[in-house]
Amino acid sequence: MNKKDNLKRLLAPKSLAFIGGRSMAQSARRCLESGFNGEVWLVNPKYPSLEGMDCIASTFQLPKAPDAVFIGTNRALCLEAVKELAQIGAGGVICYASGFAEAGEAGSALQQELLQSAGDMALLGPNCYGLLNYLHSAALWPVAHGGKAVEQGVAVLTQSGNFAYNLSMSERSLPIAYMASVGNQAQLGFAELMEALLDEPKVTAIGLHLEGLRDVAAFARAAFKALEKGVPIIALKTGVSPIGAELALSHTSSLAGSDALYDALFTRLGVIRVDTPSRFIETLKVAASGQKIKGTRLLALACSGGDAGLIADGAYRHQLALPALSQAQKSALQQVLPDYANIANPLDFTTAIWGDQPALEQMLNSALPAETDAALLVLDYPSEQSGERYMCDLLLDCYCQALKRHGKNGFIACNLPEFLPESARERLHAAGIPALQGLDDALFAWASLARYSSTAEMLLTQGEAALPPLPPAPINGRGKAALDEWQSKQALKAFGLPLPQARLCTPERAASAAAELGYPLALKVVSADLPHKTEAGGVALNLDNEAELQSALQRMQQSLAEKAPNVPFEQILLERMAEAPLAELIIGVKREEGFALALVIGSGGILVELLKDSLSLLLPTTDAAIERALLNLRIAPLLLGFRGRAAADMPQLIAAIRAIADYACTHAGNLLELDVNPLLVTATGAVAVDALIRLAD
Amino acid sequence: MNKKDNLKRLLAPKSLAFIGGRSMAQSARRCLESGFNGEVWLVNPKYPSLEGMDCIASTFQLPKAPDAVFIGTNRALCLEAVKELAQIGAGGVICYASGFAEAGEAGSALQQELLQSAGDMALLGPNCYGLLNYLHSAALWPVAHGGKAVEQGVAVLTQSGNFAYNLSMSERSLPIAYMASVGNQAQLGFAELMEALLDEPKVTAIGLHLEGLRDVAAFARAAFKALEKGVPIIALKTGVSPIGAELALSHTSSLAGSDALYDALFTRLGVIRVDTPSRFIETLKVAASGQKIKGTRLLALACSGGDAGLIADGAYRHQLALPALSQAQKSALQQVLPDYANIANPLDFTTAIWGDQPALEQMLNSALPAETDAALLVLDYPSEQSGERYMCDLLLDCYCQALKRHGKNGFIACNLPEFLPESARERLHAAGIPALQGLDDALFAWASLARYSSTAEMLLTQGEAALPPLPPAPINGRGKAALDEWQSKQALKAFGLPLPQARLCTPERAASAAAELGYPLALKVVSADLPHKTEAGGVALNLDNEAELQSALQRMQQSLAEKAPNVPFEQILLERMAEAPLAELIIGVKREEGFALALVIGSGGILVELLKDSLSLLLPTTDAAIERALLNLRIAPLLLGFRGRAAADMPQLIAAIRAIADYACTHAGNLLELDVNPLLVTATGAVAVDALIRLAD
Repeated sequence: MNKKDNLKRLLAPKSLAFIGGRSMAQSARRCLESGFNGEVWLVNPKYPSLEGMDCIASTFQLPKAPDAVFIGTNRALCLEAVKELAQIGAGGVICYASGFAEAGEAGSALQQELLQSAGDMALLGPNCYGLLNYLHSAALWPVAHGGKAVEQGVAVLTQSGNFAYNLSMSERSLPIAYMASVGNQAQLGFAELMEALLDEPKVTAIGLHLEGLRDVAAFARAAFKALEKGVPIIALKTGVSPIGAELALSHTSSLAGSDALYDALFTRLGVIRVDTPSRFIETLKVAASGQKIKGTRLLALACSGGDAGLIADGAYRHQLALPALSQAQKSALQQVLPDYANIANPLDFTTAIWGDQPALEQMLNSALPAETDAALLVLDYPSEQSGERYMCDLLLDCYCQALKRHGKNGFIACNLPEFLPESARERLHAAGIPALQGLDDALFAWASLARYSSTAEMLLTQGEAALPPLPPAPINGRGKAALDEWQSKQALKAFGLPLPQARLCTPERAASAAAELGYPLALKVVSADLPHKTEAGGVALNLDNEAELQSALQRMQQSLAEKAPNVPFEQILLERMAEAPLAELIIGVKREEGFALALVIGSGGILVELLKDSLSLLLPTTDAAIERALLNLRIAPLLLGFRGRAAADMPQLIAAIRAIADYACTHAGNLLELDVNPLLVTATGAVAVDALIRLAD
Repeated sequence: MNKKDNLKRLLAPKSLAFIGGRSMAQSARRCLESGFNGEVWLVNPKYPSLEGMDCIASTFQLPKAPDAVFIGTNRALCLEAVKELAQIGAGGVICYASGFAEAGEAGSALQQELLQSAGDMALLGPNCYGLLNYLHSAALWPVAHGGKAVEQGVAVLTQSGNFAYNLSMSERSLPIAYMASVGNQAQLGFAELMEALLDEPKVTAIGLHLEGLRDVAAFARAAFKALEKGVPIIALKTGVSPIGAELALSHTSSLAGSDALYDALFTRLGVIRVDTPSRFIETLKVAASGQKIKGTRLLALACSGGDAGLIADGAYRHQLALPALSQAQKSALQQVLPDYANIANPLDFTTAIWGDQPALEQMLNSALPAETDAALLVLDYPSEQSGERYMCDLLLDCYCQALKRHGKNGFIACNLPEFLPESARERLHAAGIPALQGLDDALFAWASLARYSSTAEMLLTQGEAALPPLPPAPINGRGKAALDEWQSKQALKAFGLPLPQARLCTPERAASAAAELGYPLALKVVSADLPHKTEAGGVALNLDNEAELQSALQRMQQSLAEKAPNVPFEQILLERMAEAPLAELIIGVKREEGFALALVIGSGGILVELLKDSLSLLLPTTDAAIERALLNLRIAPLLLGFRGRAAADMPQLIAAIRAIADYACTHAGNLLELDVNPLLVTATGAVAVDALIRLAD
């Protein structure tokens, strides 16, 4: 069978084998007890039986080739087992053993051997915790886990076995269809698993916990497939901090790349990024509910003014709107609520109607018709000992029924994660209503999914998502060559980048060239050996006439002789001074480990350091993506007609940036670095005043 | 007895009374059962006994005047009971009934009556849930609660009964000494309760959940007392969002004031502000531990690379440092940890030494001597069913003992709040080690307290904290009078604000005045009726000679005749053009509901809208606070010598801003608004180019 079919067997197995000792016997038992609907074999050469399970002495004695195998042995035996299983035609194996690529060079060689031995068999790991499969009750897993069989649910892929272990124990009622600890990703990595999981309609969303990606282009293809299918991807990526990035590098030898480029990648593909495990889970819960949320308008209900205040601030923080109630709604609510109720959105319906089903229903029927995209009820269960949980259950049921009656999206959130007990979560889950734990995380999660549909639609329309990023290729040549300013500018001009009118000449020809161009002028020395020409006195601006030009030439010659004696004063560039710009931009192209090229668009001039205002786009990119990046800069107001000034000519500006991107894509094989600084933005276009390109030799 | 002594009786009662029906009987029973060490009486005129408690028919028949009384009756009976209790000399009462000030004008009158009836008796409420007192096992509370007696703990004051109710049910093991629901704050408000609680050494920290303050100056006095005593105040203030602010106003008729001024107030007084209930609790837990944390350097320990990545990023987010391990530590750790362990800070010590006490101790002994201010262990307990919690207990105990052995501050955090079971929390609590739930909240909480000591010290030294903010006073007069630019500037000059050299004259005298001043000049029309003079053509800049001045005068006259025909062209201001500034600032003074005056310091010029860069200081303020605000602006680099430019003359700049503050304080009785825009900052000082003052008539 081919690799793809074997991966399907691993993900939907009809037969399982566990290879190893007592703990494998326990794992096999857990599968049987949790209702796995197929055959389960235990392979152990030493014992006739373990933990009440009969042992088969060798893989060759298995009654038939198993679809999925957990190999719980040490490294050496694992290698052997993989070879044997490949021979008998098993579907897929999970290699638990460590000591492979994560353990240095010798281990890397063994991992290579492992990979080759597996052939077309699917292989997860090595150095991984395995695969929990709750669609088929097949826990290919070395230890206990807290999960339950589901009809459908999310898939979680993580680089941390410990994270998977903890998640399986969490009190969150996240419906998990699959959870894979990917380990060293010798064969199956994030991209391969995502591709396969996206073919399973019972997978409602995919959660990724990662430190970095080995194959950005493959990931992008898989994420694009998810975007097309409307399956949300939620990513908890660590390595944001410098120390975190270092750890990622040494922990799973992920090629880290700058975190900003992951932001670029995720934004390009509509991947929802989260920064804590609790937001990861709560966001997955919203996605798992399958509710199609059309917008960010919420109707919020709470039984206290304190809660209403927390909801209002939290919604604001996460950019969810709370539209006002209509006059008719207010009147209707006044009928059923006490005088002191605060009739607004968020609505404090007070505890006065607590436990009063007709009043609760009347309240819900009056409030729910609001012009909103969804409803939120904040509900905190008291401790079991209080004996008052039944009142919460009543409200919960009324709310679920009312949502159904009014055909409304909605969710329930509690203030602290522990305030929604399992029974309540299960009740909500059965009704398709997310039971979200922790109000702030809940609002974050809902807002993320509320924006997902429109973002996905936009990304699919704009086309950038469909373009796989350039693969990081080995650079041709090893040395580094800087083009001088003139060469850099001419190279970019060939792709359409607008430049000031200019003449390249010798200092002796300066006066006549200046006369041709007309004043005011800028004068610069041109040399690839002088990247910091301003510091060396190699730049003179605003020269208004020949006298100023001549004295500038003289000063420049002296300064260079002193500060850069090795740079010959042979070539100069004269350029017409540009008009005062609306804004200054810096456009750069960076090459980073794990990625190929990224286009960096940022504020220039004095604002660079004050605003730290830049965004990255992976190449290739599109005009629409460039425009989106420009409009997401903090200085965007300067481009749009600030305080009565003119607006920038956006199509011309985008075309200028596009020229730089096109140059970079064409020279992807040997471009090391490119900087256009500044690109001056005017009402009629954009003009590159300085440029620098470094290529591999 | 006087009010202060009566409040002490309410907070440390030796006898309790409950007035009301069955639920009061239950409340009384709960006090007896939870071990209240004094007399408990139940007052009810109808029944001889309730819930097995004997009833006393009337307050006058009580054997003696109770120290603390919970009145659980309706509004009318509550009023009556308060009168009677005041007569017999009770200490303090809690009024549960609603229908007072929160219910409109009639209710307000009743509240006034209630307040007067109480006399010198302490009175909490009305419209409140009461007071949980776990120092004396006295729950003056209408319903069940989940708390436990403590030796010492935090005090929580909240405007939301529901918040208090939920908090008492949370699974967080927060040691609560007192929790008060303050209701309408007829007599006892935040300030009064804080003052009294700060006299109780067993109160380790104070948590406030509030929508707004009625008496900012009284709060400031109480918060200053806390600062002097080193008792951290942690505030969860809602009303950040526009909708939240509106709700706050209608919910408890708090005088809201702009949220930015609460930030100013909290910053001034070292109050730690939090934005979610979970951060509120976790931060209180750190404060309650009483550890004196000297700095923000952490040594972090985890058993997985996934956790280490989350710690690194979280520490970075909350500005906690993770200093590198020494070479000696690394060598020592290599002895005990497996090859694949990532020996760094955060340390992934792996699960290889899980359950191995000598190895765990060796690891801790090698890691803990790091040059850090505290240690963090991330520990996630698996579910009880896993049967593996004992391994976590072992590690927990080793960690606690090692911290003690090494004389080190430290805490434990779990990734999700539910991963530290109560038994583990209690174990840690007993050892004085905070058991923090949710890694991100834990790092936030620890960072807040790690900065508290140095902040408190700085605030006490700088003196601003000791100055109570000006009380909001009724404005003298009702009309509004704008001073013109000249008057405004002269008024501020009298307090020391530097101005450009200038002449005020008629247009006819312009040429001779200009000759005296010298060019280049700015020309402006002066009239209090023309606040937007630029738009009306009333400003001309950079006039280099008399010809330019004359033509500017002519254009100005024409423009004004057209755009502001009612403004006479009679007075003009000629000013020497200022040199190009290092930065432009806007200095304003605002008057806001609930507060008196605030000084607003912000970036001026083009950056105002792009950076939204301003900070407020309540008046009066100090030079040190002005300096701190300047250095916290985003444009601070421009003041400090940006890219090789000169630095601002900070003492002169501060003196200029101080002049504006002094003017405002002197005119606090009738100043409505003041704007100096721009204040130009140069290397030698600061100069106010435009100014506008509005006073009440």
